[in-house]
Amino acid sequence: MATYTVVGSSRGLGLAIVKELLARDPAEVGLVVAAARSPTQALDEVVKQSAGRAVFVPLDVVSESSAAECVEKISSLQIGSIDVLINCAGVHSWLQGGVALMNDLEYQLKVNVVGAHNVTRALLPLLQKGKSKKIANISSAYGSMTAAESSAFAPCPAYKISKASLNALTVQYALSYKEEGFVFMAVSPGWLKTEMGGEDAHLTVEEGAQAVLRVVDDADSSSNGCFKNIEVPGWDNYDGKNIPW
Amino acid sequence: MATYTVVGSSRGLGLAIVKELLARDPAEVGLVVAAARSPTQALDEVVKQSAGRAVFVPLDVVSESSAAECVEKISSLQIGSIDVLINCAGVHSWLQGGVALMNDLEYQLKVNVVGAHNVTRALLPLLQKGKSKKIANISSAYGSMTAAESSAFAPCPAYKISKASLNALTVQYALSYKEEGFVFMAVSPGWLKTEMGGEDAHLTVEEGAQAVLRVVDDADSSSNGCFKNIEVPGWDNYDGKNIPW
Repeated sequence: MATYTVVGSSRGLGLAIVKELLARDPAEVGLVVAAARSPTQALDEVVKQSAGRAVFVPLDVVSESSAAECVEKISSLQIGSIDVLINCAGVHSWLQGGVALMNDLEYQLKVNVVGAHNVTRALLPLLQKGKSKKIANISSAYGSMTAAESSAFAPCPAYKISKASLNALTVQYALSYKEEGFVFMAVSPGWLKTEMGGEDAHLTVEEGAQAVLRVVDDADSSSNGCFKNIEVPGWDNYDGKNIPW
Repeated sequence: MATYTVVGSSRGLGLAIVKELLARDPAEVGLVVAAARSPTQALDEVVKQSAGRAVFVPLDVVSESSAAECVEKISSLQIGSIDVLINCAGVHSWLQGGVALMNDLEYQLKVNVVGAHNVTRALLPLLQKGKSKKIANISSAYGSMTAAESSAFAPCPAYKISKASLNALTVQYALSYKEEGFVFMAVSPGWLKTEMGGEDAHLTVEEGAQAVLRVVDDADSSSNGCFKNIEVPGWDNYDGKNIPW
């Protein structure tokens, strides 16, 4: 029985991952800690209907004190450890015009990169006591510099830079903690029909959540420090392979 | 006759680049704008001995208002344009222990990434009037995620993450302005005997400065958006090729 913490769980992919986890056998998935800056009605309902298997914990990823309070709240649940951490919290924006007009680079780096660092470092002692020691940082294929030209049509440079930076953070954690058996991965969840992805996206958010969880399930030491694509049958671009940096 | 702006010119590689530029034929290198947070005695002397070819301009890269004042000062020099911008300003730190102990990620992202963005966007109108339109962001091979394992011995995760992030910023600028004839590059200057690099480093700071300027001299449209290694005869690891992200 594994314990999961999903950060950024109030909507979109994070919420869908919480739902997918709760749909699994309770013998497989124990407690799901659903962390988010503030709860939404949708998350409230999921928690209410979970019969105690999901717990909401407030967490503002950019605040180190909030991360510390989150750890205290999780510790008070007497679960003793976390097996899997999924860092889903993130911001995104579109830019009109050239990259020189980008006003939110610092903000996106703070939320999408420093935020993931704040959460991971705060939860590390609980993760160290966990069995599977898996951390999935939800990244994006837009963070691939190798593929930057092919995604140049999407005008979200701050997001792309922040995801490349999150990938680099993931690599540093992977190298630093591999001897302890940790598996740190950056995972591209595909283009999903969320508020961020819009209605033209490839996959439903449920398909994305399932695919991300398959990446987490299948992860082993060979996945440590990798930038993983999801694998979805019928989609050539979701082939489950490593995405070039 | 080309006009250069070197940011982070008060010491180390930036200062050495200013010196190298001033050693060139005045018919080739016109004015050198030496920007730095505050001048050093070494930079003062270089400027004094330049017979008006070098000008110090104060610039704190993390401050947008300082960047705007810098542009005003450069504009008041009546040069009308900048041909080459070399972003050398940066911070670095060593970390004892695991990556979770890293306390300066936000600071290094701010100086090394957002700082380069602040400077570039502020100077862009002057660069657009320039002839060569070359921008070299001084990065590091430590920023290569592909090579992260082979540089794991160097305990400077925040620096590595910030340089990967600077590379991603460079790629976004490259894609955004290539139609205007710009060449944006991330350049790894090699391991240099500076205050940062220490005495065990491979190359003198003069060798590094010369090698970086050769990369800038040789840059053409095919260099746009690349992560360039320096080329130094006798050094297999300084082969002038693109470094994998």
